[in-house]
Amino acid sequence: MKQASEVFSGDHRAMARAITAVENGTPEGRALLEEIAPKLGAARRIGVTGPPGVGKSTTVDAITRVIREGGEKVGVIAVDPTSPFTGGALLGDRIRMNRMADDAGVFMRSMATRGAAGGLSRATQDAADILDASGCGTVIIETVGVGQSEVEIARAADVVLVLLSPESGDGIQAMKSGLMEIADIIVINKADRPGADKIEHEIRAAMELGLKSRRDTPIHLTEAFRGKGIPELVARFDAFLADRKKDGRFEERRRENMKRRLRTIAEFMVHRSLWESDGAAERLARLAEAVLNRTRSSYAAAEELVSEALGT
Amino acid sequence: MKQASEVFSGDHRAMARAITAVENGTPEGRALLEEIAPKLGAARRIGVTGPPGVGKSTTVDAITRVIREGGEKVGVIAVDPTSPFTGGALLGDRIRMNRMADDAGVFMRSMATRGAAGGLSRATQDAADILDASGCGTVIIETVGVGQSEVEIARAADVVLVLLSPESGDGIQAMKSGLMEIADIIVINKADRPGADKIEHEIRAAMELGLKSRRDTPIHLTEAFRGKGIPELVARFDAFLADRKKDGRFEERRRENMKRRLRTIAEFMVHRSLWESDGAAERLARLAEAVLNRTRSSYAAAEELVSEALGT
Repeated sequence: MKQASEVFSGDHRAMARAITAVENGTPEGRALLEEIAPKLGAARRIGVTGPPGVGKSTTVDAITRVIREGGEKVGVIAVDPTSPFTGGALLGDRIRMNRMADDAGVFMRSMATRGAAGGLSRATQDAADILDASGCGTVIIETVGVGQSEVEIARAADVVLVLLSPESGDGIQAMKSGLMEIADIIVINKADRPGADKIEHEIRAAMELGLKSRRDTPIHLTEAFRGKGIPELVARFDAFLADRKKDGRFEERRRENMKRRLRTIAEFMVHRSLWESDGAAERLARLAEAVLNRTRSSYAAAEELVSEALGT
Repeated sequence: MKQASEVFSGDHRAMARAITAVENGTPEGRALLEEIAPKLGAARRIGVTGPPGVGKSTTVDAITRVIREGGEKVGVIAVDPTSPFTGGALLGDRIRMNRMADDAGVFMRSMATRGAAGGLSRATQDAADILDASGCGTVIIETVGVGQSEVEIARAADVVLVLLSPESGDGIQAMKSGLMEIADIIVINKADRPGADKIEHEIRAAMELGLKSRRDTPIHLTEAFRGKGIPELVARFDAFLADRKKDGRFEERRRENMKRRLRTIAEFMVHRSLWESDGAAERLARLAEAVLNRTRSSYAAAEELVSEALGT
């Protein structure tokens, strides 16, 4: 397939088209994922999440610049569930994309909420696969840590950075949101602002009290806007990944992540067959009528529905 | 089957066992639902919901007494998602059940949250079928209107009463919770308490502004504790159901409810086959490994998983 070889060559337009295809779940997208499957797994996947306003995009851009100094290609997927434009770009993203467009070694894509349940998580992982196949050594998945599904998206990475800032409210609040449980490294950005000491202290205190398993999670201070602390942050997650590769926890995590991913894809497939395929609405109406006519039990009708929809 | 005939005869112990069986989704429960299917549909299903503390159980008990005066058998399913005892009874339920135990024409069952997604809604409808088959002319489904899933449970009824009280906070709050959209009759209980006028006014004002389709929803005042307004309330939903039977909207609503129910059951069945059947965990682990080994794409692995689990 022409498109697959273009993706392998790292052609930005081909990559963008490929991501749109997998995002929309088209047969073309599916065929492409089939072709790239044997080449996947080389990229390290970095999840970056945190409350709105902590400086996630600034930090991701700064990390990208540091990695690019070593020559490695970087792919960025920015997940914005609040964006009304599916797969489109908001003003902020557009500015970022223009800035990054100068560098052929960086590919950036913004993804918004899809209608289907679990859809954004599925599409994000598929897009990460495209970037992996295109030769990006690092794929950064940036997502606003506002809901369970966004937290899940970040969690699918090999290493998760949770960003906070002195302005993002107290550390206790962050603990409550479930963000801390997925953090491999806690980053306090805007560390020059008043309150940085306080939030660090709060996080430490909360970890001592409640999240004993997370007691050793490192806290890293950055000022992403001026690049301060960023090379050290990159060195830190490099070391984290190297350690985990040594003791097998890297592979173990990939296995757990892949299990969750297969669940999401399987449920997506089944959901589509059951409720969105041709004739699904008529089938449901017909079988509901059969139960009301007392010619089927509700379970027999549901079984028939599953059987017809999935061809069992 | 012996159990089915015992259910048809209205034997309380047989009904209780039958509900436990359908709640747990056992093969015995399924067989029973198959046997009773040809006899279903006669009972009218009354949904009663509202915020905690408005007097739902007192109102349901008072409604039950009024209906019992006419000799009709009544079944009550009290859904309490906060109860830690699956299918068990809390102190308050126990008192109610003892009080009702004197009357063989009343069957009461308390149901708590089940683990499975959509499980409580599914189990509640199945239990209502058991009560229907056992000869209850009225099945009341009482549920705390705290979350979307509880609202959905009440919504599956032929008529929905939404209870509020002067103490339940302002009417605007109730509008926000999505309760009003499913109300066929709004009941202001504890109508003797200060603030009853105010909440009625607020509800009317909110309906004028926002819920135009619900503008004609009747508001009914009760003092359930002393039975005041309850015979009139029963007459009101009787008339509501009679009207709807005349113009076909009763059957139309049953069709829509049955479609939602079949969706829930189908998803429950698929979910169980995919993730909870024998060998499901091993299958998932094996296919995740296959993707990580690059011998399958994630989609091919998910397809294989669905196919193996559902026998397609």
